[in-house]
Amino acid sequence: MLLREGYSNLGIQRLLDETGIPKGSFYHHFHDKADFALAVIDAYVADVHMVLDQCVFMTAMPPLERVRHFFALVEESYKADGYLGCLMGALGQELSGVSEVFREKIEGCFSSVADRLEVCFEEARGRGEIRDGLSARQLAELMVDCWEGAALRSRLRKNPESLDAMVNFFIRSVS
Amino acid sequence: MLLREGYSNLGIQRLLDETGIPKGSFYHHFHDKADFALAVIDAYVADVHMVLDQCVFMTAMPPLERVRHFFALVEESYKADGYLGCLMGALGQELSGVSEVFREKIEGCFSSVADRLEVCFEEARGRGEIRDGLSARQLAELMVDCWEGAALRSRLRKNPESLDAMVNFFIRSVS
Repeated sequence: MLLREGYSNLGIQRLLDETGIPKGSFYHHFHDKADFALAVIDAYVADVHMVLDQCVFMTAMPPLERVRHFFALVEESYKADGYLGCLMGALGQELSGVSEVFREKIEGCFSSVADRLEVCFEEARGRGEIRDGLSARQLAELMVDCWEGAALRSRLRKNPESLDAMVNFFIRSVS
Repeated sequence: MLLREGYSNLGIQRLLDETGIPKGSFYHHFHDKADFALAVIDAYVADVHMVLDQCVFMTAMPPLERVRHFFALVEESYKADGYLGCLMGALGQELSGVSEVFREKIEGCFSSVADRLEVCFEEARGRGEIRDGLSARQLAELMVDCWEGAALRSRLRKNPESLDAMVNFFIRSVS
């Protein structure tokens, strides 16, 4: 609901109605909507990290193929949501102009995804599979950023074309 | 205010208070907040088109340099706003899950920016300055998407590093 409807637009009462959660239970776990949304971001990012960690350590697969595989799995999850894009991108856009807490939280999420991609780019460079002169860190940050733009476009178009185009372009460009 | 605070979070009364516009004047021009926000998007995109059209037809400059120049000018405008990123990206993320009107409007804006970039990429290809096998249209769409991701990151980090990195990477990759 946060991803589809946005943060400010989502009323707690409607959330409780749709999920059948008593108000008391909600406020037992969360101080307020911000506290709830931060917990949702933590859970979302934990899922991303789990998938990414599985991909990063698939050492039988060449490192750039692991990167490609990770984004293919993320694309599958976007498809399952009906192409709504990325929760971090959506809440990052909506809230970072008005909340330092969300701004720093979401920046930290992107940075932590780049940490893991960096491992693959570093390994690819060691194997001579990167021709681009940028550091593994720079490539990882760039790929996160380009993916987020493609994710926004997939939300606007309700299809995966922008995601596929971006990953193909990026991997081809660096290798 | 729409770019900084978001759509749902922005109350009409606060908008009127901050701008000193009487309520009657607002409702004389706009039916409601959605009508207002759509007019803001139109004005924003008209500015982008004006800058872009000036760049596209700077025919004394090589076409890829015109693309680079355009994004440098957009980056200047982001700097003037205090690095809040792109209004189309912000409202596209916030609203496209709940409003077909905004979704289609903003998708059309991105597509119209790609139309103009495509002219430069086509000309660059004709001059043998593109090594990438993608069509001028595909490159234009890709660059819009990657820019939007970099714009989100500039909003999260309050600095232009992601914008510069993306444009440098993209131009170097295609040429």
